[in-house]
Amino acid sequence: MPATLLKLACPDRVGLLARLTDFVATRGGNLLEVHQFTDSLAGWFFARLAIDSATLGAGSAGLQRDFAPVGEELRAEWTIRDEAHKPRAVILVSKLGHCLADLLWRWRSGELPAEIPLVISNHEDLRGMAEREGIEFRHIAVPAQQKDAAFAEIQRALDDAGADLVVLARYMQILPGSLCARFPGRIINIHHSFLPSFTGANPYQRAYDRGVKLIGATCHYVTGDLDEGPIIEQEVIRAEHFHSPADLLRLGRDCERLALARGVRYHLHNRVLIHGGKTIVFRD
Amino acid sequence: MPATLLKLACPDRVGLLARLTDFVATRGGNLLEVHQFTDSLAGWFFARLAIDSATLGAGSAGLQRDFAPVGEELRAEWTIRDEAHKPRAVILVSKLGHCLADLLWRWRSGELPAEIPLVISNHEDLRGMAEREGIEFRHIAVPAQQKDAAFAEIQRALDDAGADLVVLARYMQILPGSLCARFPGRIINIHHSFLPSFTGANPYQRAYDRGVKLIGATCHYVTGDLDEGPIIEQEVIRAEHFHSPADLLRLGRDCERLALARGVRYHLHNRVLIHGGKTIVFRD
Amino acid sequence: MPATLLKLACPDRVGLLARLTDFVATRGGNLLEVHQFTDSLAGWFFARLAIDSATLGAGSAGLQRDFAPVGEELRAEWTIRDEAHKPRAVILVSKLGHCLADLLWRWRSGELPAEIPLVISNHEDLRGMAEREGIEFRHIAVPAQQKDAAFAEIQRALDDAGADLVVLARYMQILPGSLCARFPGRIINIHHSFLPSFTGANPYQRAYDRGVKLIGATCHYVTGDLDEGPIIEQEVIRAEHFHSPADLLRLGRDCERLALARGVRYHLHNRVLIHGGKTIVFRD
Amino acid sequence: MPATLLKLACPDRVGLLARLTDFVATRGGNLLEVHQFTDSLAGWFFARLAIDSATLGAGSAGLQRDFAPVGEELRAEWTIRDEAHKPRAVILVSKLGHCLADLLWRWRSGELPAEIPLVISNHEDLRGMAEREGIEFRHIAVPAQQKDAAFAEIQRALDDAGADLVVLARYMQILPGSLCARFPGRIINIHHSFLPSFTGANPYQRAYDRGVKLIGATCHYVTGDLDEGPIIEQEVIRAEHFHSPADLLRLGRDCERLALARGVRYHLHNRVLIHGGKTIVFRD
Repeated sequence: MPATLLKLACPDRVGLLARLTDFVATRGGNLLEVHQFTDSLAGWFFARLAIDSATLGAGSAGLQRDFAPVGEELRAEWTIRDEAHKPRAVILVSKLGHCLADLLWRWRSGELPAEIPLVISNHEDLRGMAEREGIEFRHIAVPAQQKDAAFAEIQRALDDAGADLVVLARYMQILPGSLCARFPGRIINIHHSFLPSFTGANPYQRAYDRGVKLIGATCHYVTGDLDEGPIIEQEVIRAEHFHSPADLLRLGRDCERLALARGVRYHLHNRVLIHGGKTIVFRD
Repeated sequence: MPATLLKLACPDRVGLLARLTDFVATRGGNLLEVHQFTDSLAGWFFARLAIDSATLGAGSAGLQRDFAPVGEELRAEWTIRDEAHKPRAVILVSKLGHCLADLLWRWRSGELPAEIPLVISNHEDLRGMAEREGIEFRHIAVPAQQKDAAFAEIQRALDDAGADLVVLARYMQILPGSLCARFPGRIINIHHSFLPSFTGANPYQRAYDRGVKLIGATCHYVTGDLDEGPIIEQEVIRAEHFHSPADLLRLGRDCERLALARGVRYHLHNRVLIHGGKTIVFRD
Repeated sequence: MPATLLKLACPDRVGLLARLTDFVATRGGNLLEVHQFTDSLAGWFFARLAIDSATLGAGSAGLQRDFAPVGEELRAEWTIRDEAHKPRAVILVSKLGHCLADLLWRWRSGELPAEIPLVISNHEDLRGMAEREGIEFRHIAVPAQQKDAAFAEIQRALDDAGADLVVLARYMQILPGSLCARFPGRIINIHHSFLPSFTGANPYQRAYDRGVKLIGATCHYVTGDLDEGPIIEQEVIRAEHFHSPADLLRLGRDCERLALARGVRYHLHNRVLIHGGKTIVFRD
Repeated sequence: MPATLLKLACPDRVGLLARLTDFVATRGGNLLEVHQFTDSLAGWFFARLAIDSATLGAGSAGLQRDFAPVGEELRAEWTIRDEAHKPRAVILVSKLGHCLADLLWRWRSGELPAEIPLVISNHEDLRGMAEREGIEFRHIAVPAQQKDAAFAEIQRALDDAGADLVVLARYMQILPGSLCARFPGRIINIHHSFLPSFTGANPYQRAYDRGVKLIGATCHYVTGDLDEGPIIEQEVIRAEHFHSPADLLRLGRDCERLALARGVRYHLHNRVLIHGGKTIVFRD
């Protein structure tokens, strides 16, 4: 059953859920799935409603139109999206292919409901992996002295591709603040450590040096603050004294793949809301 | 904030959640937490609403009275309970004390909102553990030839204690069907294996013999069918070739304690619904 | 450092490890890694020694020759292998590609030290996935009425490919006993349940029907007894009431991929010993 | 079988394990368990040998005497201990009792092979918990203005109790460097976060504020550097958006109990070696 997804965050007040469910019921909408969370400390309300699109007389466009005044009254941030319309995701990579390979395989198998029109890289290494799936691969070098030009080109490429989502699948360049600002809550990164441990470079080597007994990976939204964006998902695996830095790298790859794939999937299903630098994730 | 908890299961139909939230809003009730699940395969609807008791003019008794005709109309199984009224839990044990020690510690620390008026055992070993917490301990032997009499006595003891919940914390006797039937969905057991693997006796030895690489424990409701009741929670831990049966027993104890404690806690918070031999658990 | 791997299992006696380490030291061998396990219940001794090949004057062939009388004296099952000589692994698949995709990716990235000369399938679906990696793909149909002929053809293909290892990566046919017997301890299967739970067909549906709270996958050696072979690795993931059978299938795929990849890797590194229907796994 | 435990760390050289196993075999010792690890990056060798005490003619004292020149020659740090001689562990606590309750229960059940002659606290709250197990409880207040005197008294108490090991089971005071130096590698602490995340105070609140999706606990040796000592064990549990700081505290308690109990157990079994600020843990 294709669903229409209503996602909403607003100041809490009495009767909000009744208001929303009434709104849907009045339009004949059959609720397939309802998630709600009240953050009583912050006084904020979050909800995700999945409505059987076939039961909505006026379609998701009609619902969107009708909901506008309600959203305004509630001072809500909200979106309504028809699942039939898939988001367009552009993937940025460098040389390491494990995350890209994993995303592409999941996408092919139907786990990730997105269009993937483009893969961008600052290296040529992964061209074959993208093109064999029929996806355009674009090499945009990022020389140390010409970063501004490079990221301007990346931004144009994202615009041309109509990117709804940008996935940094082990992209080893730091995005400029302007680019981050253009895609608020729509750039997802995988960091190869269990944040806030080991922010920055070489986390596996530093985990090795510190002698931690678990290593991990963190999937998060990208903001101007490096490694400080809202966390969507984290994964860990046990490390032992006999694991060399190379072993940690190998074990960590599985964490990275799982955390990134889950984070991207949650996002694509409109299951993530951002508030106060944190995420609400209505997992499936 | 003490809450009034409405738990409900009924055949699915359009507008159910709107109906419930309206019902609460009309009575001034402020929703603290809402969980809902529609099992579209079974065509069944499940919900748990936590309502700020202070906002309910007529109290939880009033809500209960008002809801009765609604529940009937929806052909629902439902309960309304004021959290201020704690369930009375009786714990049954044999000789092994790890689960009892754990439950008592969590109870003392406030993790388990229950009265514990009584511990029953077919052995004397754990008397001290119960009595030092000020809990009555009753030894009811279960001789092979006089089981009927023993379980009749247990049943009277449970009735006298006003038991709302019976917890089998490694109680090594099989309850008769009549006793199970008297507490439907209100007897919780911990089985020391990852069900449905290793039903019956000596699961750790059998796990050892089979050479499994993970062992576990299962917290489930007790029905007349041994080890077949609805599962509430399961926990696992990694086993390796160097673990003897005694090691598995030791490692498994931690699984048992965690799975039992979580299962009991979910139940005490009215977070578990049973349907078709399975559970819906709105976890916290 | 390329290593020479000595793997050995024999009846326990005093001084075994001294005997082995002496044997290596006498030949100038530098031990890189030593694992030893004494199963005191079974009275059996297991060891794996990784020796720096460069320090062995006579090479691994010389070591093998010299060790023969020692192995005989100890009544040991043993192998000596130079890591430089990679085992030849043939992969059998049906229609589902997630395990094959994962194995091929890990192989490409260097996680799996093997030659993969051939992929065999009873369907055409995964031809592209194999051939784009430069691996021969052979379609051998297994019609219900001509199974004997089909498996005879498979056996010839395995022989022609010089298979040291056969990996069943969600191959949905049951191998005949004769084929199993030809590759003792050298056929690895992934079963899509947490064995011994849900042996046989449709484990995810049955896990759903039972309402388990964790699902899993099991990587094991294949013997004539279906789903009863020695277990190498198991992996689990949490299941909740809102997971449909399709969700369990999706979540389970990640368990399958991880468990199979680890099991195959352990085997390829000579880290697995089989004894009494169980495995000793010296993990890395 | 009571064992004699030889634990050793020294610069790596060829033939070390042969040397050690020969040494034991020559004295008639039957090896029950052997662990060895060569850190090829650091050029260091680590081993733990468990020898059946009954097979040692001259006993563990004799072994110790004989091994002294060998240890010197190898420039090794080493200990030989007869398991029959249990270490004396003193536990320090403040007001929170979950870790103490857990340690005491495991100790009673035989999981922790130690004498526990004394519990010290800067508060009176947990007196009952210790005394009901027959353990002396000593209240040593640590007023802000008289810390030196307080810790001098603690040191005397530890000396009087003949402490081999000091366990900080949520002791909320920072030990002075002089006390740390007096028990090198013999003070174990549980920190209520997944180090190096959230060193210092209030880790659960800070984990909540950061919005992490997993929280954890770290068991480590105490050095003069707060939260920087060698890590023995870590444990994590999943956190979700609906978990309040109080929920994280509750969930974290289980991580703390497990990580601390495992760390203390490994230590008591002489399974931990410290080198370069990290630990080698030969787990059981």
